[in-house]
Amino acid sequence: MKDFIIIGHKAVTAPFSLNDLPGAAGRMDILCRCVNAALFLSHGMRRDVRVYLVLKGEPAPPKLVRFEGNEVRYLSPDERSAASLIRKALEKSAQEFWVESTPGVSIRKGDFGDVLSELNKRVIYLREDGEDIRGKEFEDPLFVLGDHLGMTEEEEKLIETYEHEIAGVGPLSLHADHCVVLLHNEMDRKEYLKRSTYSEPDDNSGYRTQAPA
Amino acid sequence: MKDFIIIGHKAVTAPFSLNDLPGAAGRMDILCRCVNAALFLSHGMRRDVRVYLVLKGEPAPPKLVRFEGNEVRYLSPDERSAASLIRKALEKSAQEFWVESTPGVSIRKGDFGDVLSELNKRVIYLREDGEDIRGKEFEDPLFVLGDHLGMTEEEEKLIETYEHEIAGVGPLSLHADHCVVLLHNEMDRKEYLKRSTYSEPDDNSGYRTQAPA
Repeated sequence: MKDFIIIGHKAVTAPFSLNDLPGAAGRMDILCRCVNAALFLSHGMRRDVRVYLVLKGEPAPPKLVRFEGNEVRYLSPDERSAASLIRKALEKSAQEFWVESTPGVSIRKGDFGDVLSELNKRVIYLREDGEDIRGKEFEDPLFVLGDHLGMTEEEEKLIETYEHEIAGVGPLSLHADHCVVLLHNEMDRKEYLKRSTYSEPDDNSGYRTQAPA
Repeated sequence: MKDFIIIGHKAVTAPFSLNDLPGAAGRMDILCRCVNAALFLSHGMRRDVRVYLVLKGEPAPPKLVRFEGNEVRYLSPDERSAASLIRKALEKSAQEFWVESTPGVSIRKGDFGDVLSELNKRVIYLREDGEDIRGKEFEDPLFVLGDHLGMTEEEEKLIETYEHEIAGVGPLSLHADHCVVLLHNEMDRKEYLKRSTYSEPDDNSGYRTQAPA
């Protein structure tokens, strides 16, 4: 399973208007684009991906919203569609455990530390100055990305309590969703190479049976 | 200059509601995400990029909308923001020449063939089965991408009247905006390497002065 955690430092924790995601909803647009980048292929969904959004904005922080690629329904690639499912999740009374709001989307009370502890995996923390992802292999990875505000000192300290590495996607500082696209591409290439070496080509996995020419 | 042309086969050619970009506006959401992917860095704009959108939907096709990275204003990363500037452009009476609707955004009557002829550059056509972009260098490139419907036979024939190549971004079929992110990353890496070899490190270009560790 490929897990992504994205922290929305201002993302609101009550139902919001779909017409002002960047403003009134606290840069909810960033989180919505990360959901898109993590889950969508051109004609399908990445079923081996889970996305955890950490909502830290008013009025009732912190809350966690989870999208599961193998279960999710009613999700289209546009920002407003992801936002609408997040809003539906926020309409639920959040508990200390996961409650499903729509198929494949769940919500709970909880902070960044709670989801780290629940997943209890080695952390790959994406940061501008991190070690280049090119050529790296990621087995059952957990990627952690900040929003436009990056990551707080407290959040970095939390990461340091886990086995972790700091990774970067290239020479320029990019939006979180663009980083997610680059991470997937690196993993897609590695998986494609493995498949072409070890398995039958026509396994309906969505991978092309011809190598990129 | 890095030019991108994205063809919206159903994208409407009259002002539309910002609340239904995928439906009533004819998958305008795809074009908006491409504008984002082409122009945005984490804390700034890619000034050396122009994006041309070919709108081929009803009621008055075809129209061209251009975003110029070195001029554009009032553009935020969210889909609705790009959509709102496209809508403002569609409120103008389109002519046979470019008319600026807001700073850095212009509109004209015209089709895919018109923008190809205006730019008159070698074409890099992004297609699922294209030759891998990794390791390629792109000098003053013109990238052409289709929307969810890909490219028509007629459009492919137009491309073939220019010097061109067919390029691909990896083993899976991806959304156009994800392809744009991958193209930029490849070019960013090449430019970074050139700069670290040939020029002073602190030139305020936004490139990090330290190599990715």
